[in-house]
Amino acid sequence: MTGGSSIRDVAMKGAGYYSSSTAGAKDVIDGATPLVLDAADALPIPEDGRPITVADMGCADGGTSMEMIGKVLAALRRRAPGHPIQMVYTDLPRNDFSQLFQNVHGLSDLASPFPDMPDVYCFASGTSFHKGIFPPGSLHLGFSATASHYVSEKPCAIPDHVHMVGATGPVRAAYEAQGARDWEAMLLQRARELVSGGRLALFNFGIDEAGRYLGHTGGVSMFDTFNELWRDLAERGAIAPEEYRDTNFAQCYRTVDQFCAPLTDRENAVYRAGLRLEHVETRVVRCPYERDFSDHGDADRFAAEYIPTLRSWSEHTFVAGLSPARPAAERQAIVDRFYDNYENRVRENPDGHAMDYVHIYLVCEKV
Amino acid sequence: MTGGSSIRDVAMKGAGYYSSSTAGAKDVIDGATPLVLDAADALPIPEDGRPITVADMGCADGGTSMEMIGKVLAALRRRAPGHPIQMVYTDLPRNDFSQLFQNVHGLSDLASPFPDMPDVYCFASGTSFHKGIFPPGSLHLGFSATASHYVSEKPCAIPDHVHMVGATGPVRAAYEAQGARDWEAMLLQRARELVSGGRLALFNFGIDEAGRYLGHTGGVSMFDTFNELWRDLAERGAIAPEEYRDTNFAQCYRTVDQFCAPLTDRENAVYRAGLRLEHVETRVVRCPYERDFSDHGDADRFAAEYIPTLRSWSEHTFVAGLSPARPAAERQAIVDRFYDNYENRVRENPDGHAMDYVHIYLVCEKV
Repeated sequence: MTGGSSIRDVAMKGAGYYSSSTAGAKDVIDGATPLVLDAADALPIPEDGRPITVADMGCADGGTSMEMIGKVLAALRRRAPGHPIQMVYTDLPRNDFSQLFQNVHGLSDLASPFPDMPDVYCFASGTSFHKGIFPPGSLHLGFSATASHYVSEKPCAIPDHVHMVGATGPVRAAYEAQGARDWEAMLLQRARELVSGGRLALFNFGIDEAGRYLGHTGGVSMFDTFNELWRDLAERGAIAPEEYRDTNFAQCYRTVDQFCAPLTDRENAVYRAGLRLEHVETRVVRCPYERDFSDHGDADRFAAEYIPTLRSWSEHTFVAGLSPARPAAERQAIVDRFYDNYENRVRENPDGHAMDYVHIYLVCEKV
Repeated sequence: MTGGSSIRDVAMKGAGYYSSSTAGAKDVIDGATPLVLDAADALPIPEDGRPITVADMGCADGGTSMEMIGKVLAALRRRAPGHPIQMVYTDLPRNDFSQLFQNVHGLSDLASPFPDMPDVYCFASGTSFHKGIFPPGSLHLGFSATASHYVSEKPCAIPDHVHMVGATGPVRAAYEAQGARDWEAMLLQRARELVSGGRLALFNFGIDEAGRYLGHTGGVSMFDTFNELWRDLAERGAIAPEEYRDTNFAQCYRTVDQFCAPLTDRENAVYRAGLRLEHVETRVVRCPYERDFSDHGDADRFAAEYIPTLRSWSEHTFVAGLSPARPAAERQAIVDRFYDNYENRVRENPDGHAMDYVHIYLVCEKV
């Protein structure tokens, strides 16, 4: 459960690793399944025999969404028996699409609904969701969970924190502007691709009305802990000041207003392209490891189980922040020490640590 | 250039390995490009705005067909400016689709036509071409090269050879029957998926009118050499008799008549489904390593360059033929010795060794 590079590369560790280390991400999708089923119920069924096209954008190995996708496809199958359905999984080119297809085709430990589903055709795309993935007017239902917080490029270094949630002033503004550009680009592409009456169901990391976000829900703040422990390594001379400064997540956590603006501002290109907000809500989904800890009370076990789920998506950023002049083994040793420090901190004082998920849930309609 | 497992897994060695060790396979596709361009010129362009769909079935990393596909898409782009084109690459789930997408999106050493091609949407499928890949009536041009000789299952062991080209009697008949079943299944699926006027361009390993096939064109027969050297290991006790017997390529090389029968026999389900033979020819494409050798005359160099191209697609079969009770390192050592023996044989007496490609070229129309 150690090692790994990016949230995408983690899938390359083999069947189920990504999904098992992100049990909470599956909880988020499972809990939001009724929203996707409602969207599927509202879709127009093509009258000319064209396929119904459903997409999971930012799919990784498909593991966290497999159960939900199975329910959605079954619902569409019941609505339109015999009508061809295209299921398209998308992610960046370096994603482990082979693991995805093995999961989809029932060749891994994961239960797959696909082998038993007639007239469903499964595809993958390696095209970024900031670009055009589908022909115009061909997408019926686009789903994406926990993917749009990645921005297409880092606008600048964050000198005093590792994540934009800890940034202020012009640095914060630069990340928010990059986040707005990418979010609008993604929505504009989908507006072009959706059929009239098509839906997007988008469940993304964000900042809720109470200022909560991932791992920052009233207890010990996860990103502040990352920052403290990383800065501590700089203060001890284990990493250089420039390495501390240049270690930043290429992410933007958007507020509810920032998520909704392109869909409600009548002057915005997304609104003008016909994309409308149908539903918005925020939810906090409890960290499954902290929940288990509240049952078993074993701090050693909690620390040992909790750190891998943080590490699975964050390690790449810390490794990448270190100077490429360091040998790979040295970089790895520094990052091992960093997570060991985090684990020790949790073990010694476990209370308040929790990677609670905070998502903004949006459903949009193309009018 | 050692190691590797199947012809598919070879792509996992990284960018270009598969393609560089199969330069001849690219020669075959490059030489047949006019046939594919003619087929593309004859396609009907959808009048209702539905996308034009082109497929490369059995694509591996996409490297050997990239230049040809670029020309075909450019020709279609000129015929139908602005019309959406879907390019779908298909292979089995364990194929390295990440490498494929990196090649397609211009993220590897290979030159890719895709980043500069407007309104082209690229997808992948992990569905076997013996099954349904596309919705009915949605495929315009299906291309496949050097893939259909793999049969979906081995019908029986070949007791006295490693390949069905060396088998006789009921064993040969069993492989030919399996080859016929798989070929018809593949064609029937495509007949269902093609639009009226759609084309298939299928260039496959086969046995030509003169009895020639891959590596068996008048000089030293490659498959007979494989068989002699593998049996030699059995006779020396390096492998068990059962291991010799159970080492068989899951392949069928079909004759021209066997390839054409489903397309010309009016009682055949493929013919009845509307698939017609438009063009058939056979070609021998000279082994690029033997051709180089005829220039440089250096037997050591020829042997060193020639064996890896054989090994790239054959090694998996020899490793898989060995008892799983042997440790992996022991299996690898046996197979290393086997290819060393082949290399020594070529070095000592290079004349006549050549992996000339023998393909049956078919173009079919869906009426």
